[in-house]
Amino acid sequence: MKLSDLGEAGLLELIRDWTTIRPPVTTGVGDDAAVLDIGGDRDLVISIDAYVEDVHFRTDTLTADEIGHRAMAGALSDLAAMGATGVAAFVGLHVPPTASVDFVHDLFRGFRRVADAAAVQIAGGDTVRGGLAIDVTAVGTVPHGKAVLRSGAREGDAIFVSGTVGRSEAGRRLIAGDVTADVPAAFRREAEEGHRAPRPRFDVSALLMGLRSRPTAMIDVSDGLAIDLRRLCEASGTGCHVAAHRVPIDEAAKCIAWAESRDALALALGGGEDYELLFTIAPDAEEPTIEAARRAGLAITAIGRIVAADDGMTLTQRGGSEVELPRTGWDHFSPPS
Amino acid sequence: MKLSDLGEAGLLELIRDWTTIRPPVTTGVGDDAAVLDIGGDRDLVISIDAYVEDVHFRTDTLTADEIGHRAMAGALSDLAAMGATGVAAFVGLHVPPTASVDFVHDLFRGFRRVADAAAVQIAGGDTVRGGLAIDVTAVGTVPHGKAVLRSGAREGDAIFVSGTVGRSEAGRRLIAGDVTADVPAAFRREAEEGHRAPRPRFDVSALLMGLRSRPTAMIDVSDGLAIDLRRLCEASGTGCHVAAHRVPIDEAAKCIAWAESRDALALALGGGEDYELLFTIAPDAEEPTIEAARRAGLAITAIGRIVAADDGMTLTQRGGSEVELPRTGWDHFSPPS
Repeated sequence: MKLSDLGEAGLLELIRDWTTIRPPVTTGVGDDAAVLDIGGDRDLVISIDAYVEDVHFRTDTLTADEIGHRAMAGALSDLAAMGATGVAAFVGLHVPPTASVDFVHDLFRGFRRVADAAAVQIAGGDTVRGGLAIDVTAVGTVPHGKAVLRSGAREGDAIFVSGTVGRSEAGRRLIAGDVTADVPAAFRREAEEGHRAPRPRFDVSALLMGLRSRPTAMIDVSDGLAIDLRRLCEASGTGCHVAAHRVPIDEAAKCIAWAESRDALALALGGGEDYELLFTIAPDAEEPTIEAARRAGLAITAIGRIVAADDGMTLTQRGGSEVELPRTGWDHFSPPS
Repeated sequence: MKLSDLGEAGLLELIRDWTTIRPPVTTGVGDDAAVLDIGGDRDLVISIDAYVEDVHFRTDTLTADEIGHRAMAGALSDLAAMGATGVAAFVGLHVPPTASVDFVHDLFRGFRRVADAAAVQIAGGDTVRGGLAIDVTAVGTVPHGKAVLRSGAREGDAIFVSGTVGRSEAGRRLIAGDVTADVPAAFRREAEEGHRAPRPRFDVSALLMGLRSRPTAMIDVSDGLAIDLRRLCEASGTGCHVAAHRVPIDEAAKCIAWAESRDALALALGGGEDYELLFTIAPDAEEPTIEAARRAGLAITAIGRIVAADDGMTLTQRGGSEVELPRTGWDHFSPPS
């Protein structure tokens, strides 16, 4: 069987079988990052993220600086999604020999901007000739036993998402020039910035980890809210109910969807690379969490609730009708209405 | 300027400038691996190694299992070269969508064989479509402050190498079929095995780290004894004298060189991917080190001595004449005699 027939999810399942989780590794393949208990008062959190030309990015619409920025942001976001603080990053850089030194310098400027903002050092790397691809290994730490996994959500927990969703996808379409919608300048700027220079949400992660009652489960929105929420629920053995009218849809995404007579919710649920945090909070911790975020000036929105697995993964639309939570990202996504 | 004009060493210099070393990172770009002091009684040692088709390996002479084996061996060898023990490995796998599931499974079997032998877990990975390339991030630990760097060699130290050198290059040529020499079956088998399935020398590393007087500097022989010794000396700010007749040349390499009327030493000094350990020992620790290796049944050979930088990096040939230690690997290497 070819990989193209198996698909990425199928391959990941196989790889999980081919790898092991035993001490000191306490969490392995299948979460945002691996967790290693190496005997200190903090656990190690490590993730590797591959970022490849024409799969994850194009060089005709993004600068080298932006490509570097996005690669590092995507990698560090996996640490934020575990509740970890970043320490170091290691870059495997594959570049064509015809690339200019300036191009590589600009990539590093992008890496550095994101790493510096998170107090993460680029502590190692390897550079080889090849098609343009960037593998970033992100290393962080979290207090021993406190890493927030995908698998901890329980029935009754509230589902929250930080910031807005659909922004990066809206920005990508604006940058690609395939949008005819009249998008106000401020919204356009925010969306394009969201696509060119996403920020890992260490601010939200730090806020949540400082609470008496931490999130029960967390994942970053890298492939789209719907698909990432599905992953969290699958890992937790639960279902979920999402209220469509609660989803914090990016304003530019709304404009684009309106102009194209498409459902903005579909774009918001299916658009990836927002790198917002999607997390679940036990019922008695909802109010303290909302209050802490309000004090800190960080936007978080309750969008639904974890339910029993038997109750499925559903979306309540504005009219009140209930549909299945979409299974795919924006590209292969048929709008629910 | 293009990367091809700058070369890998030039690029590495630039990258060193673009990155930082500050706590908790105590050693960064430029050694075999980075060292991080994260506050426990052991330091973290982390390295990333990129392994790319048609740069580092060919799929027509190696199986997927062997490719996986070699990628993991090369990555873990960087940990051994720091005196570290391995903990976990993270694999960034770029494969064409036309690759078969069996091919990827075989790669993982190769990864696993080497990782299992070193008690290292494959704890995470990312798989993307692309040209065949494998980035392995290796994570290990070493007692706090005890990582053996390239930079610690001092004038008067003895230079040792484990095992034999030139074996992998001899094996590569035998496998490629471009050898007409009559190589005895046992030597051929050893050389081919050395190329297909090299072993990171955690055994030698563990022996050395258990001594009262550890190596002052260490590096693994990944690009060739001569070039790797040069790197060690440059990092230490020293020169070196190597005695040609002391270099433990692989037997198959000797046969090949003899049949081609070439210098076996050139092949041995320039052939990469042996993954033997090259290390320096303070004068008063030489005898205990040799004795310990003898007791453990591990072959190590003293091949020369560290000298002042002003005395250069030289090679004393069999006849007694002194030449400069070669600067390049086998391919671009003109024999010294």
